[in-house]
Amino acid sequence: MKKVYLNPADMPTKWYNILSELPDMAPPISPATGKPVTPQEMTAIFPEPILEQEMSPQAWFDIPEKVLDILSLWRPTPLIRAERLEQALGTPCKIYYKYEGTSPAGSHKTNTAVPQAYFNKICGINRIATETGAGQWGSALSFASQIFDMQLRVYMVKVSYFQKPYRKSFMNMFGAEVIPSPSTMTNAGREALAKDPNSNGSLGLAISEAVEEAASRKDTNYALGSVLNHVILHQTLIGLEAQKQMELGGDYPDMVFASCGGGSNFGGIAAPFVKDKIDGKKVECIAVEPISCPTLTKGKYAFDYGDVAKLTPILKMYTLGHDFMPPAIHAGGLRYHGDSPIVSNLMNKGLIGARSVGQLDIFKYGTLFAKTEGIVPAPESAHAIAATALEALKCKETGEKKSLLFCLSGHGFFDMASYDQYLEGKLEDYAYPEEAIEESLKNLPQVDM
Amino acid sequence: MKKVYLNPADMPTKWYNILSELPDMAPPISPATGKPVTPQEMTAIFPEPILEQEMSPQAWFDIPEKVLDILSLWRPTPLIRAERLEQALGTPCKIYYKYEGTSPAGSHKTNTAVPQAYFNKICGINRIATETGAGQWGSALSFASQIFDMQLRVYMVKVSYFQKPYRKSFMNMFGAEVIPSPSTMTNAGREALAKDPNSNGSLGLAISEAVEEAASRKDTNYALGSVLNHVILHQTLIGLEAQKQMELGGDYPDMVFASCGGGSNFGGIAAPFVKDKIDGKKVECIAVEPISCPTLTKGKYAFDYGDVAKLTPILKMYTLGHDFMPPAIHAGGLRYHGDSPIVSNLMNKGLIGARSVGQLDIFKYGTLFAKTEGIVPAPESAHAIAATALEALKCKETGEKKSLLFCLSGHGFFDMASYDQYLEGKLEDYAYPEEAIEESLKNLPQVDM
Repeated sequence: MKKVYLNPADMPTKWYNILSELPDMAPPISPATGKPVTPQEMTAIFPEPILEQEMSPQAWFDIPEKVLDILSLWRPTPLIRAERLEQALGTPCKIYYKYEGTSPAGSHKTNTAVPQAYFNKICGINRIATETGAGQWGSALSFASQIFDMQLRVYMVKVSYFQKPYRKSFMNMFGAEVIPSPSTMTNAGREALAKDPNSNGSLGLAISEAVEEAASRKDTNYALGSVLNHVILHQTLIGLEAQKQMELGGDYPDMVFASCGGGSNFGGIAAPFVKDKIDGKKVECIAVEPISCPTLTKGKYAFDYGDVAKLTPILKMYTLGHDFMPPAIHAGGLRYHGDSPIVSNLMNKGLIGARSVGQLDIFKYGTLFAKTEGIVPAPESAHAIAATALEALKCKETGEKKSLLFCLSGHGFFDMASYDQYLEGKLEDYAYPEEAIEESLKNLPQVDM
Repeated sequence: MKKVYLNPADMPTKWYNILSELPDMAPPISPATGKPVTPQEMTAIFPEPILEQEMSPQAWFDIPEKVLDILSLWRPTPLIRAERLEQALGTPCKIYYKYEGTSPAGSHKTNTAVPQAYFNKICGINRIATETGAGQWGSALSFASQIFDMQLRVYMVKVSYFQKPYRKSFMNMFGAEVIPSPSTMTNAGREALAKDPNSNGSLGLAISEAVEEAASRKDTNYALGSVLNHVILHQTLIGLEAQKQMELGGDYPDMVFASCGGGSNFGGIAAPFVKDKIDGKKVECIAVEPISCPTLTKGKYAFDYGDVAKLTPILKMYTLGHDFMPPAIHAGGLRYHGDSPIVSNLMNKGLIGARSVGQLDIFKYGTLFAKTEGIVPAPESAHAIAATALEALKCKETGEKKSLLFCLSGHGFFDMASYDQYLEGKLEDYAYPEEAIEESLKNLPQVDM
């Protein structure tokens, strides 16, 4: 096998819901009442079908035809054997990657942006507010909102707004309004600006702004690009396609790697393989995170807020504390203090593993991948490449011939400035001091569950 | 048919040579002697196998296994039915596109960069000099040179060097040395700087610099990304795959559109269809160029230099005059005064047609394509989109149900600044005044053939 294209007619038509295997999931807790969030609280910002997907234990959800139709613009995505990377590493392993960078926004985010826009639209919602860090999610939702003729406002973390002007251009092209966060449009933003008029913003703060706007405007809903259960559900297309493609190619992975920020990319490829593992197959799924934001590897499994302003529901998850402020690494999409409750639950049960890698390794193996396989990866995606390469090198020592599969979640055409800095020797690794993590973990909310 | 992936095993293994149908091709003329270029003159800058491909009338060339191996990193490329674009236009036509943007450099250029690097390498050449305008060709050859462990120097038109820093980063990532042109490294560059120290450069001048360097250094050859016969040969993979895919999809195009600067993209998709036409099939191949650089639609079929400094062989081609200076439109890849001798010959015989479009239409239909089909096109590639859309709209008037195929030669992720300007209403159409063309056509060289 060199490359397996799935026939468009063989694209999965259902999403797989790993919640069906997790009856012990803790409910989201209302920050206002300290009790489980009521449906009324949720319907202020999410449409009914999304809430059902968020909560339901049913194992499979049909993908609406209209959604399949749009997803098929770029799906199924290819599964490719990285033979030249294997040779460069001199590993006895087989390395495969599932490539999600061919989507309109250039990453896996579009897989959930389309159904989220669709389910809002059929519920009569014509306007969405959201946030974006590096710009991947904002780009994906801009494309999707435009498809269904909806308005979109994106609160973009201010530092990225100015550092990544072309991401803003991309969103504008699809008709979205992009506001640098913190802004004067929300209480959360105004408070942040009052404290620090030169604030660069953060993802947690941008979330606060978008949620506040959605909660306070009847015509506007909120959409999140990661973390939540329905987002992982939508992303399982990645793993479902990969399973079919590995089978067509006559192999099965010993290990599955994916980068993990909020967890949607990792959860998306891993969930179907975790189900295999529960059913007795031997497969290890490894979430890969930056050493500078080591949520799964150094965080605590506890209830915490999803945002800085404590507006979102409190979720049971691995967290570094909601006021943890990671350093400005070149993988903005992985700078989130918490993690998906699903991924966290799987981690806590030992059904998955986690590893952390530094950004020097990210760019080292990201560059090697570009040179051997011809695709410049997004720094976020390069986390999966680095972890896979390091495993392949370990196997070179031991002589193990593993099949390694990773998800290449997006391309890096908008990240060349970061590669420049790496090539010029300006980057360094930055492991967050353990004491700082201990400190921010002291501020977790008290929840009686 | 919605999308046809060709099985990797069904990728063509031979290039098609349309020269086999053109026994009347005029030879390249030496600027030094005024006589046909001698093999000795050519071998100073090109390796033997490339020269054979440049001259030979044989219809098919085997693709070396090593080249196939690298091309298969991204080939075969998909052929996609643009149903949502059809709906948006309200046309009775079927619109298909062949997408070349999945290659390492993001365009069709990589198709010829790889074999050019390979054939140089097997002839003992380890260093290449080339030029690049907007950066597509330089990026492609950077990738290819790195694959075969060769050194590369790229003379990049100075205005692009500063306007497109990420293209430079991309080339650096693959180990290429990028020099803004005009430079002080060559006589051609020094002369240009003496005349105008603030010169922005031009493609013709950058060609002069690269050719001068290759001709004066024994260890260095030259490589060109378009115009020449062997480049068109390498690009015929596009048309050969498209033919197979259209057949698998149960259709055949009435018209084939591709943007045309030097002619390699157009020649690559068109050549196999032109052969069909010669064999009696009904198909129209249309080269699409900017109204600001209307080589095929307003130029003259005559002998002319390929570059400003008159260093390259004199070629029989459609030309606007070698000192024609097109305005700075946002499709840098199409700002060449001449055209491929093969494409020119086909045009002169009436075997193909040509149309020109303005940049407002380019961005209008490029944006519509992004919104409907989910791919942001390069401004160059958007010429083909615009011409196809305009034809589809014409058919809406007449009720004709044509099958239209176009080549989407590359993505526009590096061109967002141009889209910004369009969205901000800052662009205008710029048809070059006829008198200026008449003027520059007065300076054609005299050749007795």
